[in-house]
Amino acid sequence: MSVKGVVMNMSEKEKGSFTLPGEAGYEALTLKMAEKWGADVIRDSDGTVLSDEITQAGYGIYSTICIIRDHNVWAREHMDKLQQTFLMSQPVLAATDTVTIHLMDGFFEEQFRVNDSEDALRYWEVYDRTAERKLPKGSWTLEREAGNVVITGAEQFHTYTVSFLAYRIWEEISMYNHVTNQWEKEHLMPVDPRTKEAREYLYQWLRDWCETHPDTTVVRFTSLFYNFVWIWGSSEQNRSLYSDWGSYDFTVSPQALDAFEQAYGYALCAEDFIHQGKLHVTHMPAGKKQRDYIEFTNRFVVDFGKELVKLVHDYGKKAYVFYDDSWIGVEPYSKLFPEFGFDGLIKCVFSGYEARLCAGVEVETHELRLHPYLFPVGLGGAPTFSEGGNPTLDAKKYWNSIRRALLRQPVDRIGLGGYLHLVEPYPDFCDYIELVGDEFRRIKAMHKDGGVYTLPCRVAVLHSWGALRSWTLSGHFHETYMHDLIHINEALAGLPVDVKFIDFADVKAGALADVDVVINAGRAGTAWSGGDAWKETEVVTKLQEWVCGGGVFLGVGEPSAADGYMDYFRMARVLGIDEDTGARVCHGRWQYEVDDALRQQIFPEGAKISGRDWLFLTDGRADVLAEENGIPTVCINDFGKGKGIYLSSFSFDNANTRMLLNLMMYGMGLPLDADYLTDNADAECAYYPKSGKLVVINNSGQEICTSVRMEGKSRAFTLQPFETQIVDV
Amino acid sequence: MSVKGVVMNMSEKEKGSFTLPGEAGYEALTLKMAEKWGADVIRDSDGTVLSDEITQAGYGIYSTICIIRDHNVWAREHMDKLQQTFLMSQPVLAATDTVTIHLMDGFFEEQFRVNDSEDALRYWEVYDRTAERKLPKGSWTLEREAGNVVITGAEQFHTYTVSFLAYRIWEEISMYNHVTNQWEKEHLMPVDPRTKEAREYLYQWLRDWCETHPDTTVVRFTSLFYNFVWIWGSSEQNRSLYSDWGSYDFTVSPQALDAFEQAYGYALCAEDFIHQGKLHVTHMPAGKKQRDYIEFTNRFVVDFGKELVKLVHDYGKKAYVFYDDSWIGVEPYSKLFPEFGFDGLIKCVFSGYEARLCAGVEVETHELRLHPYLFPVGLGGAPTFSEGGNPTLDAKKYWNSIRRALLRQPVDRIGLGGYLHLVEPYPDFCDYIELVGDEFRRIKAMHKDGGVYTLPCRVAVLHSWGALRSWTLSGHFHETYMHDLIHINEALAGLPVDVKFIDFADVKAGALADVDVVINAGRAGTAWSGGDAWKETEVVTKLQEWVCGGGVFLGVGEPSAADGYMDYFRMARVLGIDEDTGARVCHGRWQYEVDDALRQQIFPEGAKISGRDWLFLTDGRADVLAEENGIPTVCINDFGKGKGIYLSSFSFDNANTRMLLNLMMYGMGLPLDADYLTDNADAECAYYPKSGKLVVINNSGQEICTSVRMEGKSRAFTLQPFETQIVDV
Repeated sequence: MSVKGVVMNMSEKEKGSFTLPGEAGYEALTLKMAEKWGADVIRDSDGTVLSDEITQAGYGIYSTICIIRDHNVWAREHMDKLQQTFLMSQPVLAATDTVTIHLMDGFFEEQFRVNDSEDALRYWEVYDRTAERKLPKGSWTLEREAGNVVITGAEQFHTYTVSFLAYRIWEEISMYNHVTNQWEKEHLMPVDPRTKEAREYLYQWLRDWCETHPDTTVVRFTSLFYNFVWIWGSSEQNRSLYSDWGSYDFTVSPQALDAFEQAYGYALCAEDFIHQGKLHVTHMPAGKKQRDYIEFTNRFVVDFGKELVKLVHDYGKKAYVFYDDSWIGVEPYSKLFPEFGFDGLIKCVFSGYEARLCAGVEVETHELRLHPYLFPVGLGGAPTFSEGGNPTLDAKKYWNSIRRALLRQPVDRIGLGGYLHLVEPYPDFCDYIELVGDEFRRIKAMHKDGGVYTLPCRVAVLHSWGALRSWTLSGHFHETYMHDLIHINEALAGLPVDVKFIDFADVKAGALADVDVVINAGRAGTAWSGGDAWKETEVVTKLQEWVCGGGVFLGVGEPSAADGYMDYFRMARVLGIDEDTGARVCHGRWQYEVDDALRQQIFPEGAKISGRDWLFLTDGRADVLAEENGIPTVCINDFGKGKGIYLSSFSFDNANTRMLLNLMMYGMGLPLDADYLTDNADAECAYYPKSGKLVVINNSGQEICTSVRMEGKSRAFTLQPFETQIVDV
Repeated sequence: MSVKGVVMNMSEKEKGSFTLPGEAGYEALTLKMAEKWGADVIRDSDGTVLSDEITQAGYGIYSTICIIRDHNVWAREHMDKLQQTFLMSQPVLAATDTVTIHLMDGFFEEQFRVNDSEDALRYWEVYDRTAERKLPKGSWTLEREAGNVVITGAEQFHTYTVSFLAYRIWEEISMYNHVTNQWEKEHLMPVDPRTKEAREYLYQWLRDWCETHPDTTVVRFTSLFYNFVWIWGSSEQNRSLYSDWGSYDFTVSPQALDAFEQAYGYALCAEDFIHQGKLHVTHMPAGKKQRDYIEFTNRFVVDFGKELVKLVHDYGKKAYVFYDDSWIGVEPYSKLFPEFGFDGLIKCVFSGYEARLCAGVEVETHELRLHPYLFPVGLGGAPTFSEGGNPTLDAKKYWNSIRRALLRQPVDRIGLGGYLHLVEPYPDFCDYIELVGDEFRRIKAMHKDGGVYTLPCRVAVLHSWGALRSWTLSGHFHETYMHDLIHINEALAGLPVDVKFIDFADVKAGALADVDVVINAGRAGTAWSGGDAWKETEVVTKLQEWVCGGGVFLGVGEPSAADGYMDYFRMARVLGIDEDTGARVCHGRWQYEVDDALRQQIFPEGAKISGRDWLFLTDGRADVLAEENGIPTVCINDFGKGKGIYLSSFSFDNANTRMLLNLMMYGMGLPLDADYLTDNADAECAYYPKSGKLVVINNSGQEICTSVRMEGKSRAFTLQPFETQIVDV
């Protein structure tokens, strides 16, 4: 049997499961590409419309709506029903006993307008941030016209801030596109569905929309009501003051806060959101108040969201949610998510972990929006479909990230977005997307036939959010690259292991019973390491017991770090390594020799872990596999029948991904030369026993050779850059 | 006037102020070298004796005694009067509900013997370190013969430790020399003067000694009673389990603890010393209990110490203290130190800051013991006076470190130690020491004539210990090199500025009034950064007020860091920079451009500051002078009339030292091309107005050129490696 060219065997070719962005004025192109790429659905995009010729060509039709914007006429008449947020003013030093704080200093004036209504003022707070003390109400006054707060009786050389409510007068995604593309359009304002009046208006608007869009088969919500937090500054030197893709701060309003108090029996205050100006970053563990507020808002979004979904259903259409941007309260791993009744979830994907995020959601249809978007420039402003761009290479690299995830867990559909006419001068791009579509459908089919072989290795990633934030931390890879865990997640997305995400309550509730490897990866104090959750004795003892019984605890960075104990890493005795926060600087350090033989077994060529300062071996027993500047970077420690494995950091690449797999397998006592693994870290493979197929992929831009061992025999492959080969076995 | 060779002008040569190590059997050499080096005093050393021919040659005679060792006959009869310490056992995981902990596991058996007397057992403690909970007395028992503690009713998968008292049965310095040199001598035991019986014995012993040493003019105490803490382990892979040159843990005993309770009205427990196994490292801020215990012990050491000094005086001898090793309770910057009545303090010096430490003590005679010691091998085992050694080069390098400090502040004497016969094959060494002696005496004379010119720049180093730990952190440079502050102190030791050391109480008491620059340098939470002292609002406001009024706050590393506030660096608004501990990872970072012009002005060639992760500009105003990986490493921020200056780290070398001076001068608004400064960072100079002399030194091993500006004129110098030139101006 020939190995090469199998993918292009046209006799096996199926169609469908592909969403194409159509474009009025390019009807012939639209239908030609629909045929070439095997599309069964045509969609509009932000900035395109579909003509009747397209909508009536027999394809399914997706229509995009962003429910909370594009209502400026209504919004202008209901400026008190725009969405809001808490802001903290710039800190101001008291040079005398009177301090004047101009609230909007430093904020982007086109995004915010101070909400100084009496209703809002109830929630304003003024703080002495030097003494960290809230000022009593009588000690400050508002100068409404000037937009100032004036503090009298201030303590000299203390620093003061004002926490205030502001309306958001420019919907952020629209604002971003506007500013980036130098649009001159009217600023769209985000309507807050928190009031009955606004909800009634939006409901009626959607009813009208359904009435006037009979050809639409799927309403694609982008996403629902509340954008992730994105606070802009007045200076071009620091335009994005704060951007958290998982935070709920943009859902707040006096009405929401009042409703919260009614529902939960206690009131939230500005400081619960402002948090000394740090706000509620998703990367830090949430306290009870934050969790309650998330639950409260999630409930609200689901309640109104499901009304809208039902309305869409009533018109005989399906409702899909595009999970991005206005996604706050829509979290697909929330227990409430199924209540929406969405028929599908569409996820735009840069990375493998995003494909797994989509694939794992409890919803009928899972669809990926692939990159590159059909835009002249791509992420970060580099050219795509314009001079200097290479959209085919971009597409290969993105598909390379997604493909390995899809080999592990399927989705139902893929598609593109943007302006279709841009692809015309790029026939190689059109050919490549045809190939991607074919590969995707073949992979999907093999999963349907009986699924993929997985190693007997069940991994649980342990962090503060657990299943709620499965796979993602809070946004895309390039927004969260500084966290070791996103690198770990991206590696896991394509590895032949079972993966789930658990939190500390799960550990206490017995979640370790069906887990072989627990991964805890993050900076001390963060949601990913776990912070104060590690102060719970039961968490530590449950894990120690589980490792003693044979479990593998794999820690990265500052795993299980918590102040106040003998060990800084609460799992230090398991890991065999700990970090000195300063008090152990006079303690001797255990000498060690790097175990080169074991390292060569476990580290593929090119695997590399960056070091951390201040680490030390707890008792000298750990096997050190690598070091930097005389400090271990990777070590393995026996603990009872199990093992602790420590990595001082983790950066995603092909070699490190294989190293991670090897470490987990070694920790469990599995042979590293098991069947259905490649012997080249740039290659991966997936075996589909029922289909009798082996898929071998080249995750690199170079031609490579690899062997795959199968039932005692080894089979060799030569793969072109980024190539997929599907062979019968 | 010729510039070269001025130092060697024999007509100016004086003698004296030099202590020579004599050696019986080498009388002729002893007297010859005494003449050559201008010695006025001859001393013995550990391992040498002086013959009558030497002691009666008309020189002053120093004799070395270490009062608490070399009493093994008495000690064997009073094993309960040996010195003690608290130890924490190895942590043991409870696999069942019974845990057996062998106390001495991991400790060097020749150093410790468990003190399981009833008196000591009162102070033993057993901890559950997982739950961080002390066990009640009834829940564990001691197996005396086996040396075990057995815990019953342990919680499974919790970790337990025992804190116990142990006698120290081998005096540590003697142990170190013994083990290092493979001696086969009897182990010397350290006697604890805490009991009246021991004190009477030691007092009588000293009386006898004085009676039998009529030729001795100076009794050199090495130092007094208690060594710095040095806990050895059983494994050669980690021999030095803990070593803190400033900690008081080796002074403890049931008697001391009982006396403490009587004196202070509250009891200390084992955990006050053990501190979760971290012990009392000097690099961390001390709490009230630790400060009380230090004060208590200091009082005790002074009380008995001054009795011994008086006894020496009664015999018409002087009493000097060699400040090293057994120095605990002798701290020369303690308020009690003058009470001892010592006539002199001798400090062995590797570094300039140690020379300043010595020079600043309130005592009649300040003497430096120079390196290299006349030993076959030097520090770290490298050859000195043996094959492969280059003692002359060693001497030049050490003198290079000391000389610049002595140009700023004089001492009274210098000297050497060790085996004099070793110098015979090294005539160039003998010539170089002659030159050093001459240089030293000339520098001393110029100080006496009227002193050195200092820039109008008064620097206060701010940390938890303040003046008590002036100049040193707790030991030599090579033991504390990982702390930025020791690098700062070493730089300051030779800079033409006033330097003092203050603590946070001093700040509150008004110490900033006569200070131009405050330096705070250290890792977060340490004694050097200040830890919780920064939680005191008054400290922050006093400093902010002072900077507003024109002060310069220079922070290094994690200055003023404290958890729980808006800013992590409490002086972040002054510095213009702060550190993200995790909660600000979603905040935007101010863009900046490095100010190359200012950097070139302030940074000499080769100046380099290593970067830290997670730093960010607070408001974008700061002037960034240098960066690493896109993160500022040096910045200057206007704050009122003053400035904040931040360095992400500081490593001592010639270029960085000049950069530090330039930063302080720039911060104060002083011209960087002021008079009496070299224009080459490898050179420094000192101007003695009353003497009309300028001293120019080459701090490098290369020939260099430099100019010095003096009253509008510039004068050029060419200096040989390490050369000193003294010229009339």
